[in-house]
Amino acid sequence: MMMPPMLGVLEAALYADDLEAARGFYGDLLGLTELTAREGRHIFFRCETTVVLVFRPEVTRKPLEPDAVLPVPSHGADGPGHLCFSVPMDALDDWVNRLSHAGVAIESDFFWPNGARSIYVRDPAGNSIEFASPKLWEIPE
Amino acid sequence: MMMPPMLGVLEAALYADDLEAARGFYGDLLGLTELTAREGRHIFFRCETTVVLVFRPEVTRKPLEPDAVLPVPSHGADGPGHLCFSVPMDALDDWVNRLSHAGVAIESDFFWPNGARSIYVRDPAGNSIEFASPKLWEIPE
Repeated sequence: MMMPPMLGVLEAALYADDLEAARGFYGDLLGLTELTAREGRHIFFRCETTVVLVFRPEVTRKPLEPDAVLPVPSHGADGPGHLCFSVPMDALDDWVNRLSHAGVAIESDFFWPNGARSIYVRDPAGNSIEFASPKLWEIPE
Repeated sequence: MMMPPMLGVLEAALYADDLEAARGFYGDLLGLTELTAREGRHIFFRCETTVVLVFRPEVTRKPLEPDAVLPVPSHGADGPGHLCFSVPMDALDDWVNRLSHAGVAIESDFFWPNGARSIYVRDPAGNSIEFASPKLWEIPE
């Protein structure tokens, strides 16, 4: 059987108890476009051709209601997750400045053996958020 | 201050205790290219311009060693996470067939109000893995 095609990751999920804090970080600070939100359950942001989903795990891990309109399966994790944004190499300094100016600590900032650079911060929920040039995986900008 | 540019999500992370099972699912069954692995710690896969990272949380949540060569911050979550792959609308039937043929149960398969279709399965670690046409977020194929 031929392998069916895949276009890439469409959605990456993170978990947070405080969705307003997530809105401030991903929406206001990172400038992602808010796509939709359900108060107390989730908030979603678009980032070019990908989407960042932030869920409150105490809600989304509940089993599906039998009368649910759309049978979206349950999920929900505890503890710090990880996500990496793709950023042009020459924009990483601007991101360091923007994050630092907002009082977000830069937890790490280093170059990989192949010359790519990564910076790491924590989102308000404690997730490890990386900004890396796509050269990290030899992907063109 | 101008908003610095961002290119999209580069890496999405999932957690799994059994990395060999993850290799079978993401590598053999889904056909993603294995980029790198460290036995007992992680295994990474490329999917077009994005990367799926699978970590063993009991290892990656340990605080960074003071003598670490690269200061990669710790993270690690427990419980089922979520990831969605972008799949051309006309390839979703092929994915249902491939997954079913491999004995992977289709947990949900439905159309959203905007006409996009999603199918959901569980990876071997119990993460909720979705395959959706990018129309879900009005993103072109």
